[in-house]
Amino acid sequence: MRTILIIGGGGMVGQKLAHLLADQPLAAGDRITLCDLQFPENGAPVAEEIRGTVTNPGVMKRLAAQRPEIVYYLAAIVSGEAEADFELGWSVNMDAFRVFLDTFRAEVEASNGSYKPQIIFTSSIAVFGAPFPEKIDDEFLHAPQTSYGAQKAMSELVLSDHIRKGFFDGVSIRLPTICVRPGKPNKAASSFFSGIIREPLNGQDAVLPVSPETRHWHASPRSAAGFLRHAATLRQDLYQGRPALNMPGVSCTVIEQIEALKDIAGGDVTARIQYAPDPVIEDIVKYWPRDFAPERATALGFTAEKDFAEIIQVYLDDDFQG
Amino acid sequence: MRTILIIGGGGMVGQKLAHLLADQPLAAGDRITLCDLQFPENGAPVAEEIRGTVTNPGVMKRLAAQRPEIVYYLAAIVSGEAEADFELGWSVNMDAFRVFLDTFRAEVEASNGSYKPQIIFTSSIAVFGAPFPEKIDDEFLHAPQTSYGAQKAMSELVLSDHIRKGFFDGVSIRLPTICVRPGKPNKAASSFFSGIIREPLNGQDAVLPVSPETRHWHASPRSAAGFLRHAATLRQDLYQGRPALNMPGVSCTVIEQIEALKDIAGGDVTARIQYAPDPVIEDIVKYWPRDFAPERATALGFTAEKDFAEIIQVYLDDDFQG
Repeated sequence: MRTILIIGGGGMVGQKLAHLLADQPLAAGDRITLCDLQFPENGAPVAEEIRGTVTNPGVMKRLAAQRPEIVYYLAAIVSGEAEADFELGWSVNMDAFRVFLDTFRAEVEASNGSYKPQIIFTSSIAVFGAPFPEKIDDEFLHAPQTSYGAQKAMSELVLSDHIRKGFFDGVSIRLPTICVRPGKPNKAASSFFSGIIREPLNGQDAVLPVSPETRHWHASPRSAAGFLRHAATLRQDLYQGRPALNMPGVSCTVIEQIEALKDIAGGDVTARIQYAPDPVIEDIVKYWPRDFAPERATALGFTAEKDFAEIIQVYLDDDFQG
Repeated sequence: MRTILIIGGGGMVGQKLAHLLADQPLAAGDRITLCDLQFPENGAPVAEEIRGTVTNPGVMKRLAAQRPEIVYYLAAIVSGEAEADFELGWSVNMDAFRVFLDTFRAEVEASNGSYKPQIIFTSSIAVFGAPFPEKIDDEFLHAPQTSYGAQKAMSELVLSDHIRKGFFDGVSIRLPTICVRPGKPNKAASSFFSGIIREPLNGQDAVLPVSPETRHWHASPRSAAGFLRHAATLRQDLYQGRPALNMPGVSCTVIEQIEALKDIAGGDVTARIQYAPDPVIEDIVKYWPRDFAPERATALGFTAEKDFAEIIQVYLDDDFQG
């Protein structure tokens, strides 16, 4: 019986992943364990929910002592908050990840070769910064323009070095902006990309804080969970010494997002979107990627939606309760 | 009167830089301070030599309290040693650099806007890893294949984020392999690139541990000091939000190195080079860059030698005592 640990498993993507792994197990008898600060009521059906923060080394020791075969690391301070609170962002998104790697490496070294977990880290397209080519390919440099992006890029590098040295298997999965997120807005600078779809569909007004011309890279929560599940099925040598991948997604402008919503739900719904520029959000988002050519991930079998209408439909199918 | 601090100022490049800054001051009256574990006898003429390790937070506090206007950060565990001692490499090359940034940031924040140092970090072309394009351009990804390279790439990212947030000015300078190094071999995996020139010129046998076909990217110690001096003269906005630069250099094979040596010193000298493959060194060096198109640095006025014969001549002019 294997244990699959999801650190940050109480969050939206963590819950989607836990549900997916419960519905479509990687192997018969897999035991799913979550760690997070809090968990939703009526959350995903898992074997254990462990309350604790990644900044507590004692929590990390407890997790490592379970010797989970697969570890998903999703815990993070989101982009807007990491930009607003510099020290908090570095502490959680970098220092805690180092402690995580050190603690699990100690467990690996203590095992005399019997324990080597697969670590799947959720990185982000925020590792890239402007100026960009038309499409970002798999060899484009990391020049993040946010603290969150710098922390994700550095986490990828230190994880890759641990993998190269043979302590772990694993990969960093650079998620597109996940859209449409269910629930409430969060502190991510990208929160509005979901808000302008979700709120109008639920009869509420929504604010668009950036230019409608803004082009960005999206995938659904269902795709995000799918990426993470698929990563666990791939042999390590397929990454060819570069275990960090840009995921597939949908490139579209906010105008195209709104048009897709209008086609599906009508003009009364899109009329609920108010354009109210927010210079703080605009300053972050203007340095974000717009389009990708994710050839390596596509060749490895990762798939996402084909257009934004499909992304809206996934929300209606999976999360809409109106 | 400004203070220029060189952390790692007792090492070869640090001493070259201190000599250069003494001979060609950036501004009249500049005061040069060095920090290192040890200093050469009859070293560069400087105002102060501070003995201490970068892993000691008390040393960092003492350095920051001097509020040096320009800080060169050259201290590092070299590539071969960082590969052999995983924890030592991460401790010195990453953790100590984080403490350095935190300590100087605290000094900046305590100054109420009166103190903002320029931090010039010596990075390395080891931030790049194979497979490579014919020439590495300024937008090629970081995918290091050594712990040293991962630590340098991460240091660049965290420094760049501090610069972006306005705590410091500065830049990361990715040095080519520095050749011909005077003195004795060191634990860098690249040490032999100097050894096969230096030892024969000094009447000693030298070992070539990699294939003579090996192509690599070189610049002289004089160029390295020149890069670092020049970086201090550039306005921050010239880096256009990407304060990390590939330096110019000379791309050549070991065969071309040896031919240049033969042209200058004769066949009796090159006969002292013995080919004795070392799989440990070969495994590191085979993932190293071979050639660059350093357009940004060239446009900003950084210059290096035009061919390997000129690199040997710099050694003969500056360091040869035979």
